[in-house]
Order: sequence, then structure tokens, then C-alpha cells
Amino acid sequence: MSKAESVTAAVVVIGDEILSGRTKDTNSGHIAETLTGLGIDLKEVRVVADDQAAIVEAVNALRARVTYVFTCGGIGPTHDDITADAVAAAFGVGIDHDPRAIAMLQERFPNPADLNEGRLRMARIPVGADLIANSVSKAPGFRLDNVFVMAGVPSIMKAMLSVVAPQLRSGVKLESETVRADAKEGDIAIPLAAVQKAHPQVAIGSYPFVEGDRFNTNIVLRSRNVEALAAARAALEAMLSELR
Amino acid sequence: MSKAESVTAAVVVIGDEILSGRTKDTNSGHIAETLTGLGIDLKEVRVVADDQAAIVEAVNALRARVTYVFTCGGIGPTHDDITADAVAAAFGVGIDHDPRAIAMLQERFPNPADLNEGRLRMARIPVGADLIANSVSKAPGFRLDNVFVMAGVPSIMKAMLSVVAPQLRSGVKLESETVRADAKEGDIAIPLAAVQKAHPQVAIGSYPFVEGDRFNTNIVLRSRNVEALAAARAALEAMLSELR
Repeated sequence: MSKAESVTAAVVVIGDEILSGRTKDTNSGHIAETLTGLGIDLKEVRVVADDQAAIVEAVNALRARVTYVFTCGGIGPTHDDITADAVAAAFGVGIDHDPRAIAMLQERFPNPADLNEGRLRMARIPVGADLIANSVSKAPGFRLDNVFVMAGVPSIMKAMLSVVAPQLRSGVKLESETVRADAKEGDIAIPLAAVQKAHPQVAIGSYPFVEGDRFNTNIVLRSRNVEALAAARAALEAMLSELR
Repeated sequence: MSKAESVTAAVVVIGDEILSGRTKDTNSGHIAETLTGLGIDLKEVRVVADDQAAIVEAVNALRARVTYVFTCGGIGPTHDDITADAVAAAFGVGIDHDPRAIAMLQERFPNPADLNEGRLRMARIPVGADLIANSVSKAPGFRLDNVFVMAGVPSIMKAMLSVVAPQLRSGVKLESETVRADAKEGDIAIPLAAVQKAHPQVAIGSYPFVEGDRFNTNIVLRSRNVEALAAARAALEAMLSELR
């Protein structure tokens, strides 16, 4: 697959509660793992506030440069849920109560008294969007062009992503191997750079970690070419055993 | 404190391993909590790849619009650690081995044979930067203008942030109270919007959560004005008890 055909993505996490530190974002890590498994390169994650201008800016900047944008958060029934309006504004399209979305909500709230004005806010969908089914609590997400708008509650986001994933064009999977160096990063940095230089088809990352009170290093090799990956791994292991 | 004097921040997390999902970022959440405690508003988090153009773009976009930018990751000894070079490029300044940084590394590596070319990479500091001490492993971070460049290893990042925090101009602390609604979001959305409208000095967020198989809601009230906060809380509790 040529570089021009690579499939790329970005994530926009929306919510004051993430920026205040009150809630820790786990959605972007889950999306990252899922995309990697599909051979899609996640290029950027942005966390922005519940602020229309901030959401519009992030969505418009990112949708122009990647294949797919995924947003999480801000599609509930309350006044601080403004993502659907912000995405409609980003695309310059209208937004209104969508009969398909109302039908989904009626499955969960068959009694008309329960499907109140607040819950009906969750049926407000930008014009032209396709809905993303929500098996957990029915209120749908939506897809507008290359932007997928999903919930912030992790269980619901995961349910929506599992619906979305089969719709995505997948790339050639980036194969990855991890080699534990049993050495400190600083002791292998220069020979490791030589291995990287000799194997340009493989991206070699070096990740220090602390074990007890000692530093150790994981080397991660990533490539879409399995022969190149095997050759780089062999060179890395030869380099490491020479150091021991 | 007027809006013009508010203190704001952004975080740039740098690393392919975060975007692949292999490593889950916990640094931005820790920085978010610390900043909130200092009365500093975190406006945006961006996660970008180990790619100079991506780092330069994020740093330059964000340093122009917030009081402080914090970066994490990419300042180790290996070839994939390119943050110092990228930040020098973002500011258009040179970068070279810094005698103060070399002295810090010599504390950890008194034997000249250990302070090899790889480790000396960690002493490459943009011209004009102040160093940030690293009590864990000595290799320093640095501050250039309003950009603080820190390590990606969580224990080292935390040590650096504790050095940096006292240097920051702190804002008026945003006080926060959480009220458990014991109700589903959809059942309180409309009266909650009325409470928000009547208390514009307080930001009211609504956060659904799942408990067993039932949805519940935490309402978070945030304000820099404690009287306004108390009034909004009273109004919220009156609203909730009326619904019960």
C-alpha cells in the first residue's frame, strides 16, 4: 500500500470534566487500540472544553487532514451537551429532531411522559447525518461525512465504536514487536540509532520503564512489511547480545 | 479577578506509543488535576506523534493562546527523542549541549565512560532555556518562554511538575462541588438547565454514570465565587428534592 492510500484518524475528546482532571479519559486509549488493530494510523488526539468555538475549531482542523475523525462526549440530554450543535455548525448544516432517532428513543422510553423535552434533545441530529446505533441506552450517535460523533460514557462509546468499526476502510495492519532490552536507554541509544538507520522501513521506538529502582527499556519495532520487521528484529537482538 | 487576568494552560503529549494505544497517557490527567488545584484553567490537550512538524505545529498554536504550555515525552537519549529539537525549531532558536545540563548528568554518571554520546543527547537544550531539575534521574527538562518541556515517564514528569508548580502564576481557585442526583440525566435535564440559566456565575456540568445496571448522574458545580456557588447548590438541591 502506498503512503497515499494510508488510512488516518484523529480523536476529539469533548468535556470540561476531562480538562479539570475530575474524570480521566480512557476513551481515546480504547479508540487508539481499536484503530491500530484495523491498520488505521491515529495521528492526533485533542481534548477540548464544552465550548462551541473550541469544538468547531478542532473538528474542522482535523477532518480536513485525516480520513476519519471520532468525537467522544457531549451528546446527552443536558444543557452542557452541545456536541451535536457544534458539529452541525462546523459543517454549516442545520440540526433538528430526527424521526429515526426519536424512534430509537421510543424503544427505551415507550411511555410518552418519559420521553420528555430533555431526552428529546438527544434526537437532535445534524441534517444529512447517518445514525450510529447505541445498544446500551438507545440514544444514537451519528456520522456526518468523515466525522463520527459518539458518547462519552465509556460503555456506550465502546458499543458505538463496535458498530462503526466495520464501516471503516481499514489499512494494512502495522505489525509490532516488543523486545525487552534489559539495559538502560542511555547504554543502547547510539547502537540503536544505527539499527534504525539501517532499517528505514521499520519505526523503532524506545520506551524506558522503572522496575523496582532500576531503569529498563522496551524497544518497539513497527512496520507494515513483515520481512523488514524480522530483519530489524534480528539486527536489534544481535546488537543487544553484543552489549551483554 | 477579571477574565483578562485568568491564567490558562495547554498540554502537549508527545509519543507514537500513546497514539498506537500501546501506552495509556496518565500524564495529562495528573497535570490537569495539579493545574486545577492552582486555579489555572487547562484549555486543551493535544497528543501528537514523534514527528517534528506535528510537535512544532502544536507548540506554536498553543503557546500563542494560553499562559503556559506543558509538554511531556521525547526528551530521552534515543533517536526517537526529538522534542528538544522540535521546541528549538518552534521558537527558531539554536540547540546545543548545555554545560549546566552536562553537570547534572555528571552527578548521575560520574564515570566519563557512562556519560556516552547517547546520554549527552539529554544535555542538548535550546539556547536561552532555563533548566527544570529532575530529582529522579537527573536529565533535566527545560523552560523556554512560556513552554515547559518535561519527561514522559510518569514518575519523572511528576518530579519535574513539582519543581515547576511554584514558578507558575496561580489563578483564583475554581471551587467545585459535586451533588449526586440519584436520578437519570434525562429526568432532570430541563429543570437543571433552568438552574444553570439562573446562576450564570456557576458552570454546571452533568455527568451520567452506570451503577450496576442503572444510570445515575453526578452534577458538578464550579465557580470562582463561593457565594454564587452556594446559591446554585441550594437551588439545585431544592430542584432535586422537588422531583423526589
